[in-house]
Amino acid sequence: MTRYLAHPFDDDKLKEECGVFGVIGVPDAANFVALGLHALQHRGQEAGGIVAYDEREGFNNARRFGYIRDNFTKADVMQMLPGSLAIGHVRYSTAGSKGHTAIRDVQPFFGEFSMGGAAIAHNGNLTNAAALRRDLIDRGAIFQSSSDSECIIHLMAHSIHKSLAERIKDALRAVEGAFSVIAMTRTKLIGVRDPLGVRPLVLGRIGEDGYVLSSETCALDIIGAEFVREIEPGEMVVIAKGQVASSRPFNPAKSRFCIFEHVYFSRPDSILGGRSVYETRRQIGVELARESPVEADLVCPVPDSGTPAAIGFAAESGIPYGMGIIRNQYMGRTFIEPTEQIRNMGVRLKLNVNRALIKDKRVILVDDSVVRGTTSRKIKDMILDAGAAEVHFRIASPPTAWPCFYGVDTPDRDKLLAATMSEDEMRDWIGVDSLKFISLDGLYRAAGEAKGRDASCPQYCDACFSGEYPVAPSDQIAKGFTMKAAE
Amino acid sequence: MTRYLAHPFDDDKLKEECGVFGVIGVPDAANFVALGLHALQHRGQEAGGIVAYDEREGFNNARRFGYIRDNFTKADVMQMLPGSLAIGHVRYSTAGSKGHTAIRDVQPFFGEFSMGGAAIAHNGNLTNAAALRRDLIDRGAIFQSSSDSECIIHLMAHSIHKSLAERIKDALRAVEGAFSVIAMTRTKLIGVRDPLGVRPLVLGRIGEDGYVLSSETCALDIIGAEFVREIEPGEMVVIAKGQVASSRPFNPAKSRFCIFEHVYFSRPDSILGGRSVYETRRQIGVELARESPVEADLVCPVPDSGTPAAIGFAAESGIPYGMGIIRNQYMGRTFIEPTEQIRNMGVRLKLNVNRALIKDKRVILVDDSVVRGTTSRKIKDMILDAGAAEVHFRIASPPTAWPCFYGVDTPDRDKLLAATMSEDEMRDWIGVDSLKFISLDGLYRAAGEAKGRDASCPQYCDACFSGEYPVAPSDQIAKGFTMKAAE
Amino acid sequence: MTRYLAHPFDDDKLKEECGVFGVIGVPDAANFVALGLHALQHRGQEAGGIVAYDEREGFNNARRFGYIRDNFTKADVMQMLPGSLAIGHVRYSTAGSKGHTAIRDVQPFFGEFSMGGAAIAHNGNLTNAAALRRDLIDRGAIFQSSSDSECIIHLMAHSIHKSLAERIKDALRAVEGAFSVIAMTRTKLIGVRDPLGVRPLVLGRIGEDGYVLSSETCALDIIGAEFVREIEPGEMVVIAKGQVASSRPFNPAKSRFCIFEHVYFSRPDSILGGRSVYETRRQIGVELARESPVEADLVCPVPDSGTPAAIGFAAESGIPYGMGIIRNQYMGRTFIEPTEQIRNMGVRLKLNVNRALIKDKRVILVDDSVVRGTTSRKIKDMILDAGAAEVHFRIASPPTAWPCFYGVDTPDRDKLLAATMSEDEMRDWIGVDSLKFISLDGLYRAAGEAKGRDASCPQYCDACFSGEYPVAPSDQIAKGFTMKAAE
Amino acid sequence: MTRYLAHPFDDDKLKEECGVFGVIGVPDAANFVALGLHALQHRGQEAGGIVAYDEREGFNNARRFGYIRDNFTKADVMQMLPGSLAIGHVRYSTAGSKGHTAIRDVQPFFGEFSMGGAAIAHNGNLTNAAALRRDLIDRGAIFQSSSDSECIIHLMAHSIHKSLAERIKDALRAVEGAFSVIAMTRTKLIGVRDPLGVRPLVLGRIGEDGYVLSSETCALDIIGAEFVREIEPGEMVVIAKGQVASSRPFNPAKSRFCIFEHVYFSRPDSILGGRSVYETRRQIGVELARESPVEADLVCPVPDSGTPAAIGFAAESGIPYGMGIIRNQYMGRTFIEPTEQIRNMGVRLKLNVNRALIKDKRVILVDDSVVRGTTSRKIKDMILDAGAAEVHFRIASPPTAWPCFYGVDTPDRDKLLAATMSEDEMRDWIGVDSLKFISLDGLYRAAGEAKGRDASCPQYCDACFSGEYPVAPSDQIAKGFTMKAAE
Repeated sequence: MTRYLAHPFDDDKLKEECGVFGVIGVPDAANFVALGLHALQHRGQEAGGIVAYDEREGFNNARRFGYIRDNFTKADVMQMLPGSLAIGHVRYSTAGSKGHTAIRDVQPFFGEFSMGGAAIAHNGNLTNAAALRRDLIDRGAIFQSSSDSECIIHLMAHSIHKSLAERIKDALRAVEGAFSVIAMTRTKLIGVRDPLGVRPLVLGRIGEDGYVLSSETCALDIIGAEFVREIEPGEMVVIAKGQVASSRPFNPAKSRFCIFEHVYFSRPDSILGGRSVYETRRQIGVELARESPVEADLVCPVPDSGTPAAIGFAAESGIPYGMGIIRNQYMGRTFIEPTEQIRNMGVRLKLNVNRALIKDKRVILVDDSVVRGTTSRKIKDMILDAGAAEVHFRIASPPTAWPCFYGVDTPDRDKLLAATMSEDEMRDWIGVDSLKFISLDGLYRAAGEAKGRDASCPQYCDACFSGEYPVAPSDQIAKGFTMKAAE
Repeated sequence: MTRYLAHPFDDDKLKEECGVFGVIGVPDAANFVALGLHALQHRGQEAGGIVAYDEREGFNNARRFGYIRDNFTKADVMQMLPGSLAIGHVRYSTAGSKGHTAIRDVQPFFGEFSMGGAAIAHNGNLTNAAALRRDLIDRGAIFQSSSDSECIIHLMAHSIHKSLAERIKDALRAVEGAFSVIAMTRTKLIGVRDPLGVRPLVLGRIGEDGYVLSSETCALDIIGAEFVREIEPGEMVVIAKGQVASSRPFNPAKSRFCIFEHVYFSRPDSILGGRSVYETRRQIGVELARESPVEADLVCPVPDSGTPAAIGFAAESGIPYGMGIIRNQYMGRTFIEPTEQIRNMGVRLKLNVNRALIKDKRVILVDDSVVRGTTSRKIKDMILDAGAAEVHFRIASPPTAWPCFYGVDTPDRDKLLAATMSEDEMRDWIGVDSLKFISLDGLYRAAGEAKGRDASCPQYCDACFSGEYPVAPSDQIAKGFTMKAAE
Repeated sequence: MTRYLAHPFDDDKLKEECGVFGVIGVPDAANFVALGLHALQHRGQEAGGIVAYDEREGFNNARRFGYIRDNFTKADVMQMLPGSLAIGHVRYSTAGSKGHTAIRDVQPFFGEFSMGGAAIAHNGNLTNAAALRRDLIDRGAIFQSSSDSECIIHLMAHSIHKSLAERIKDALRAVEGAFSVIAMTRTKLIGVRDPLGVRPLVLGRIGEDGYVLSSETCALDIIGAEFVREIEPGEMVVIAKGQVASSRPFNPAKSRFCIFEHVYFSRPDSILGGRSVYETRRQIGVELARESPVEADLVCPVPDSGTPAAIGFAAESGIPYGMGIIRNQYMGRTFIEPTEQIRNMGVRLKLNVNRALIKDKRVILVDDSVVRGTTSRKIKDMILDAGAAEVHFRIASPPTAWPCFYGVDTPDRDKLLAATMSEDEMRDWIGVDSLKFISLDGLYRAAGEAKGRDASCPQYCDACFSGEYPVAPSDQIAKGFTMKAAE
Repeated sequence: MTRYLAHPFDDDKLKEECGVFGVIGVPDAANFVALGLHALQHRGQEAGGIVAYDEREGFNNARRFGYIRDNFTKADVMQMLPGSLAIGHVRYSTAGSKGHTAIRDVQPFFGEFSMGGAAIAHNGNLTNAAALRRDLIDRGAIFQSSSDSECIIHLMAHSIHKSLAERIKDALRAVEGAFSVIAMTRTKLIGVRDPLGVRPLVLGRIGEDGYVLSSETCALDIIGAEFVREIEPGEMVVIAKGQVASSRPFNPAKSRFCIFEHVYFSRPDSILGGRSVYETRRQIGVELARESPVEADLVCPVPDSGTPAAIGFAAESGIPYGMGIIRNQYMGRTFIEPTEQIRNMGVRLKLNVNRALIKDKRVILVDDSVVRGTTSRKIKDMILDAGAAEVHFRIASPPTAWPCFYGVDTPDRDKLLAATMSEDEMRDWIGVDSLKFISLDGLYRAAGEAKGRDASCPQYCDACFSGEYPVAPSDQIAKGFTMKAAE
């Protein structure tokens, strides 16, 4: 019944909703999954779950609220998860019903079928889940959770196919939206990415015959696994007995990977689409310095997500780089039942200005994005209170003007600052001397597209900036969401 | 009964043992103390305590294991701590008896005297506590804890003075070693610093009539208090009804502030002795680049403590600065009851190499210190595994060759790498292409002493580097510790 | 992950597996359900659950391990269960898979249907659940639990009927075995008893328009409800808007109420079939004294279940009644993670002999039943150690020789002492001077059947004594259970 | 911070405040202490503590809120308490400051002295503790708790004697009031009873060389120890290496054992002063039936404390004995944070009337005592609601008109019904057909004093009935308590 308060600060960020990880072919696979999920914790901090299969003990699962490191490192929990095949999931809480997640919403989801059990973990969001759920209930399904992802296991249950791998295909052909799914049966580890490949999923190798599936490469590093390749958009891999079998269950489509993974979601030490996230972010800073230069004394990151772009901006501009804002290292993600006074402290609990460095300087602050803008305002106040002469904001993404329906928690459109204001209005509202966003083309260039964005057929999903949704969000449209008018 | 495992990584750092914070003259003072302690959490993460005094409710206290943010932000805890006068303490666990702290060891300590109650919180370490304890027990004292600091409250109890402030003076005149003490009676907030001023203590102002005492200035910032001045070495301040009365209870002595506070313990956004910690650290990097230059492609901090020196090194050397090592943001300080496998993961749980950036580069790693050297070796392994062409370590402090007895948790002397090896031997043992420490003079210069260290009468306590102990560690000598032979 | 150890002592009793309770038409119905379940706690101690429906808040549920009084009395739990309609369940843990129940096995079970949600709570056991489960999985059902009762909610989901009440009928027509079911929709409270009426279910009235369904009448008393009548075997009642509608969904059958409810399961202050349980038990003692008299100095109950029969025995025989065995009042049902030494203490943790009373006396011990016989032996040892001259056991039920498949946790047949030994062999094995069980006819007489048992068509289900199962235990037979040969 | 609510029902009983238990000369002595304390749980339910001494591990202690069986049966707790010498304590919460006990108030208390450590556990109450505490604070003592018993350890610390046993003598000579103390040093188990012997303390033997000290004999039974004898009033025993040395440190006085231990506090299976508690209680019933007979149909105990007297009353009067009131077995002592509705349920949560038995009968209810009288009234209401024709209360103790200051929690005098009303007024206020208390002489006869009470020099302490306090309650008198005027 405990109420958690999300960071006042984090409330002004877009949040990835999930990370997935699976291992086959190593003893005590759940231990590896726990480590992998720990490395993916930035993709979801509210809760985590692991399902493991052991020939003698069968399927076992554990679900816990809180960080992986606080739960899935305990011997008594891990002993309950024996076996050489396991998958796991970390979850961010959507601002859902009554503001809290029930433990039954925590993945992986498990189902018993006549041919044996199967578990699935899903990163992404199904855009037709509400309609599917209605139909499944009409056919006799009893839902355990309020999660869109549970549809997949019920679709599997109602498939007429004999093999579980076929049932997974069947189920995923019926869903729309973004999904990187990891599944397991008693003998197989399975990975699938939606036809557009919106969310990441990579394949790694460990030990003699072991294989790993992970949302990001940084989670391969922590367990010492070798990065093999990305699962391709629209690809399904079935791994068993040291063999990886690949197939293409969906109609072919042009890849539309989420560009915000490069900007903010993924960890800087991951490789996405063959490209270093850190390098892309540093290059965004370089592009920003070219597009929107300004005379100043100091380039400061808003820690920690603005750091690589700030390094790039400083290097390109020749303006010294410095830590003008210091982050409290002991700030967790949430406060439990905070007092009113604590609630009002906001960003101060997390950040402090390095007054001695800032005083009398013209400061360029580099941040990753502006969502509601409330945090930008507070940071500006702190910087000015500390005696800065000027404050210039440089933002490592274009204005965020549209919600994401593919697995990212975004405020309603009318809460997005960029949906209601021009760049100049935003500058005045935040109260800084200048405010500049990187251009969409600049972002594409930083992400390795030398010619920038291909407007007729964009190389990435950039719906949150452009309003161009590669998959129609049908549940949302049914609830009244208005898409951008065709131009 | 839960066993905590300190970070395998943190195990290779010196640890500050305490932070103290007190407020008088504001409503709900305990809330401010909680925030101040949160900002001082880097000085002690194992446990925290707060004592508050309210005219109607009297003295109340709460002690908890774990972070301040997890305990002292809850309404039900804070409601138990009413009043406009409160003090608090964060504590690091010394590698003490049976490896764990009892809750009764958590400060502040409270005593009831015939003239009313008093509580004290102590940062530092008493070098004659063992002897004092024996004597106090002989006189009838019943000790509650195994803490050296408890002596102070018993010395107060046995003082013949009538006023509590006089009793505190009396008690502190009997102790030797390093102490920054914050105390409270029903009406007074009291601060005292030992004659050498080894540990920091600052005075701040808040609201109309409110005053604050804090280990560091960064904790004034979080509550919006104004920095007034440092409590001077050997000074005692008694604050009541909006008035600050200063006195000098001890024989005068030359100040010997701990130079390691500049190097590592204090937060970079604090001001110590009128000097920005961040700026001192950045300047250490500059000095290091001058003293020990090397050709390379990249300057990388070992996060997070090496960052300011790395920025300085990069700026001075002209070699690009980059984040070659990425820190896991969701790494807490401890694992509860970890499995064997987790225990063996070590530094990997916390750090990952940014492979794409490191590959084929000659890398300069800037770290704050080398204690046992075990972590340096592991980091070197990670960097080489990622394909670095060369690895050069630059250390922002001189070789740590002597234990500290003034409130810092140091390994026994024979566990200190620099106590048993020369710089070249250390380089070979760690296995890097070069290893250089800043000189003692360079460090003093970076800390603002233009002429370097005054060997006849050093401006700082640097016993951990020099073996010159400004206060004889008499308990340790009684137990067999051999001091450096006079030269 | 905590392991509970059932009482060494309770291990030698048959255990009722469930109690059910529901209320409609009163504000904060869940509070009444909590009280009712507290009064039914003897029917299941491992876990409890409540589902409540409120027009604004919809369906809410809470499930907890442990006693009702420890969980469902807390304001924070009860606030989550608003509304004027609620049902609940207490559960005894079957010695099931891995010796522990998952929280997902705790009832009531809830399902969302196209016409709205429904919850059910089940007392009894379905004898064809394994077969039903297989068929339902083949039709696409995803089971959440390992409970036989979950079949009912899936059968409802697959029904073609439009109304939930009809779907419940449909589901219960498909199941075999013993069931007293309480269900709720958004507007209705529903109660059903299987055609034989093996488990109890009563109707009560509270306040203006409120109605109650409960396993026993004692739970009506605690909330001040008036006892209206029993739900009849094979009857279904649908209660809405202060009206009770009765129907008969099943083929008619002769009632076969469980006679062991009279002997042990139900509380002595309940009324079953129009008869006081206390009075039946006292009368069993009277019959026993007539059937198996013995010269002695003292009649002692084995507390607490043997007490009413001991009172009857003493009254009939004229031998003084006394408390020769004292029960520890602070003995809960379980120990959490006990040490080996505690584990071996057995019955001593719970009972102590009143030595001063027992010494040199010829003692008649009256107990309710003999299951494995291990406890009887230990009690005999304690009585003899205390100096009793003779020990005579009188048992308030016939020899328990057959397992129950209708909702009672019984050991396998070969663990039942009476299945493998004659009465004389049991006497010798237990080691007492005499051992006598009440006859089956005597038991029926005590239960109000003046002519005793009607062998051609018994008035009760007495399968545990007679081996005559009124419903074939088909799942068990499929697993190899051999029924008694027809005579 | 959790708030516990004492039973509404228990609120109307006098409460023993402590039980003590110690063992020497057996391996894993703490396990035996845990079992002994479990058997003494009726003497204190709020918290318990154990101190154990092991040659290698030294002194260890554990203190926990809640029942012994919930805390001191866990392997992880008991492993922390190795050694062959241990003592323990169960504590009832006095209605003290802010209604809750701090964990630091939980005994045994431990002190480190120059000659080694010692721990003490105290049953009773010191009547001059407030004065002693003031004096000790003046001499430099720092108190850890608000408990009167802590004075003993500080008195020991200030003793000039060399041996700990001598220091205990010294300390106990300075205190006034009632005390049965168990103490331990590294090698000795020590037991002392105050000169009047107000509280019980017995000596037992276990194994080869093992000895036990316990508040009651029932706790010897649970560990299979043999009852040797009572520690005599004013006696001190020092047990070491299998030898028991006895001495008499105090001035001789006539014994004044607490008669309420016979009436209610002690367990019925204990032996006090050579007399069975059960037998005394049964005999009280016999005396009551002789003193205050009445025509009726049924004798009912108020469970469970009225049961033996009811058995005696029924036997003497010839009126049938029956269980007219049924106790809920799953009622713990407390509710945690109950809802308002639960709070108002009062006695109904614990007791239910056996309506079928009571209806139309003239009922004699036998209860142990009347304190505030509130529960008697509620029980009468329940009995009349169930249709009883007449209700007659017979009370197994004289009217309780004076508070106890010797270790029993009593309401203030003006809350005691018998302090403000005559017997007839009480009968009318409770609302029963008749109300009779046993006479003081009758009680003494039942306790084995054939000639009744010796008014010039009573054989027992009966201050709660007579107002004759054998030790002047000096702290209370200082606070304004008025003793009974001499007649």
